[in-house]
Amino acid sequence: MTSKATTAKQQGGSKDSPTKTQQIILTGDRPTGPLHLGHYVGSLRQRVALQKEYKTFVMMADAQALTDNANNPDKIRQNILEVALDYLAVGIDPKHTTIFIQSLVTELAELTMYYLNLVTIARVQRNPTVKDEIKQRGYSGESVPTGFVCYPISQAADITAFKANLVPVGSDQVPMIELAVEIVRTFNRTYNCDVLVEPKAGLSDITRLPGTDGGGKMSKSLGNAISLGDSTDVVQKKIKGMYTDPNHLRVEDPGTVEGNPVFAYLDAFDKDKKELQTLKEHYRRGGLGDTVVKKRLTEVLLAELDPIRARREEFAKDPAQVMRIIEEGTKVARAAAAQTLKEVRQAMRIDYFESR
Amino acid sequence: MTSKATTAKQQGGSKDSPTKTQQIILTGDRPTGPLHLGHYVGSLRQRVALQKEYKTFVMMADAQALTDNANNPDKIRQNILEVALDYLAVGIDPKHTTIFIQSLVTELAELTMYYLNLVTIARVQRNPTVKDEIKQRGYSGESVPTGFVCYPISQAADITAFKANLVPVGSDQVPMIELAVEIVRTFNRTYNCDVLVEPKAGLSDITRLPGTDGGGKMSKSLGNAISLGDSTDVVQKKIKGMYTDPNHLRVEDPGTVEGNPVFAYLDAFDKDKKELQTLKEHYRRGGLGDTVVKKRLTEVLLAELDPIRARREEFAKDPAQVMRIIEEGTKVARAAAAQTLKEVRQAMRIDYFESR
Repeated sequence: MTSKATTAKQQGGSKDSPTKTQQIILTGDRPTGPLHLGHYVGSLRQRVALQKEYKTFVMMADAQALTDNANNPDKIRQNILEVALDYLAVGIDPKHTTIFIQSLVTELAELTMYYLNLVTIARVQRNPTVKDEIKQRGYSGESVPTGFVCYPISQAADITAFKANLVPVGSDQVPMIELAVEIVRTFNRTYNCDVLVEPKAGLSDITRLPGTDGGGKMSKSLGNAISLGDSTDVVQKKIKGMYTDPNHLRVEDPGTVEGNPVFAYLDAFDKDKKELQTLKEHYRRGGLGDTVVKKRLTEVLLAELDPIRARREEFAKDPAQVMRIIEEGTKVARAAAAQTLKEVRQAMRIDYFESR
Repeated sequence: MTSKATTAKQQGGSKDSPTKTQQIILTGDRPTGPLHLGHYVGSLRQRVALQKEYKTFVMMADAQALTDNANNPDKIRQNILEVALDYLAVGIDPKHTTIFIQSLVTELAELTMYYLNLVTIARVQRNPTVKDEIKQRGYSGESVPTGFVCYPISQAADITAFKANLVPVGSDQVPMIELAVEIVRTFNRTYNCDVLVEPKAGLSDITRLPGTDGGGKMSKSLGNAISLGDSTDVVQKKIKGMYTDPNHLRVEDPGTVEGNPVFAYLDAFDKDKKELQTLKEHYRRGGLGDTVVKKRLTEVLLAELDPIRARREEFAKDPAQVMRIIEEGTKVARAAAAQTLKEVRQAMRIDYFESR
């Protein structure tokens, strides 16, 4: 083993107390469909709010999407532009945020290969997130692609390649971050270095918006999502058709607020909390019709979505420019990942032609 | 799905009957120790004989060696030079053969990531070669590194990145080639192309030399190997100590030739087959001492090893030059793999900035 390869410089001098401006966020999405209100509430809003304070990398996880879409790469290709438009529309600013495509940062694949050796197969297969997602996708034991089983390790590569301190995730993704932390510790211990940085999971307040059908999760494939690019008409129609309290049959009946998606959305978007409290109390004691509540939600939501949609349409006029933004971001991301890889290879003593 | 991405050009016009000179061999070794007579008989001799006829890539599989040596990268680093010296000593000629380091061809990692999605985890775990090797290494179900389970997929990436037609392997490795063929077919079918080329296993006549202890396999770690760099003294001592027929106690006793490693080595190295036949008959009927047979083996073996050792010592005088040979070979290998990756990404429709 060699002497400690220090990375203090990268981390701004002191390893234990980096200032907030030097902290790094990695986040991203699988480009398998347009983004929706669930993404907006769960992560996009937070990214916009934090992008000036943190160095932010936003990854379009096309390679990860391929782990369970290997036979449908066109879906991924088409959604690269759609997702980028969503990013720009909500206010993710390329001046502050590096937007990049995962598969083009080939250092991530290389890093994954090294990490695969540091985690036992039993350990990945026990990962609760992977187990849940295997179940969700209806894979039988025989049919899970190897890449799908390995994707938490690949995700650890994504996070650590950028030395991210903070990874904003839903609570269901916490085991993934725990695995990344384990890999960081194993790597630094095995190669007697401090090259890799331990990430922390950043949980947002409202981690998950229910679907318009009251289902547990908003998802395009379940058909219960309001997309960020939906027109006024479509948003109105979707709100009109929303699930509410099934026992709230007549206006005068008392209604339930908990588990009622209309109120969940109002909680997420209505800035007038006092007025919302009054509305909830009225709904609970009866006398407030779903139509009235939905009208309020429509107003609130369109106020939020109208400027987003306007910006989206503006950016959509010049797709080549959007692709240039991604291409530029990908270059920046590659440079950052290449620097980490250089340190990784040095620590592993496989930098055959570069050291000494 | 897009139109067929043809690779006819790479294959020299006709896909079905490429001429022999255009055929490509991929072979290699894990750089975990100096090479020995087992490697020489099993593959090195064949590589030298074929290198003018085939386009040959010889890979130092450091990344593969890391799959079960993650905590000992120094062993790999040190053996890169040793193995390269062995290659040059036996007559592998950089003019005809591309010698390269696996981990530096990062396209191989990238390709592995895509192939991981095309093979189920059940399929890799059922691979007989992997199962055997897991047993050999004494891994329990809990302790197998994920990278070790995945290495047949990584090997398929190595083979196909160079569009190898022929992969010289021992019979125990045939299931690995079968998996590579499966991946080629799945890829070409899934992405409606003929980018990848199906490899064939090339089995050599004498696939495996027994150890000097009569053990089933010559292996440095078992201490029963004669290394290509061993001095005359060491070779003489190792032959003197070789296992023969344990029932051949006195010179006049009849002896057994089968399973007697001294005769196995003579079979592999003695060019005078008639003389060898006479020797065997004499040994069988009794009256021929082990000392005489071992003397013959020493002569035969030193005649083969002396020039190899001399060349090895010559090359060892200038290690920087050897490293330059590897560096140059690695550049050539990267260019070949990068071309395949370009076609792969195009077929997969993830060449976002290059097509259209």
